[in-house]
Amino acid sequence: MTIDVINLAQKFSLITKQWDPKIIAQLNDYHVKIAKIQGEFVWHSHPETDEVFLVVDGILTIHLRDRNLHLEAGEMCVIPSGVEHKPTAEEECQILMVEPAGTLNTGDAGGERTIEETGWI
Amino acid sequence: MTIDVINLAQKFSLITKQWDPKIIAQLNDYHVKIAKIQGEFVWHSHPETDEVFLVVDGILTIHLRDRNLHLEAGEMCVIPSGVEHKPTAEEECQILMVEPAGTLNTGDAGGERTIEETGWI
Repeated sequence: MTIDVINLAQKFSLITKQWDPKIIAQLNDYHVKIAKIQGEFVWHSHPETDEVFLVVDGILTIHLRDRNLHLEAGEMCVIPSGVEHKPTAEEECQILMVEPAGTLNTGDAGGERTIEETGWI
Repeated sequence: MTIDVINLAQKFSLITKQWDPKIIAQLNDYHVKIAKIQGEFVWHSHPETDEVFLVVDGILTIHLRDRNLHLEAGEMCVIPSGVEHKPTAEEECQILMVEPAGTLNTGDAGGERTIEETGWI
């Protein structure tokens, strides 16, 4: 059985496209994913699951309907299931997410920014 | 509903005792925990779950029966269910773990270093 040491900086260096999450680890039926993001995403929610965001580099703003969350490197939050949110970042930001395998990036919103099958990196 | 921004450095600053993991977030029925560790832990495995380790500060060595994993800050690994491991750290090390709520720190080994009820911080 292979147990790899996963270096986050090395994994992020392999990502060339923004808003294109990649899986770096599996924990039971959950995936740890990373993404580089910049600009605005779409409003969406995940009716079936909570979602962990951890900022590895940069500043992430998560818009909620009633306020905004500002997260810097070394900060995290959990967006509860069903809560509408819109991730944004003025400058390129590196984020790590933990969520059940198969969770779609656009949740219940769908649309052209949906990644139907998230790959490993 | 409260959605908190969780600052890892601030949470680690509240931990005064080594080998005493604290919960900082809940994701569905999973917990995100942090701990300060130094020295040797006990050999154990978790027959029922995989376990994520992410090093936030310092160097973590996870002994496996056939080799050792060395993880520095910004590195992580997943110890699969049933795999015996013994976390160690020469200097104090700050780690973040993700695992199902109720997972015991000593797994199937039990003993005096077991934290029966992990608290929030």
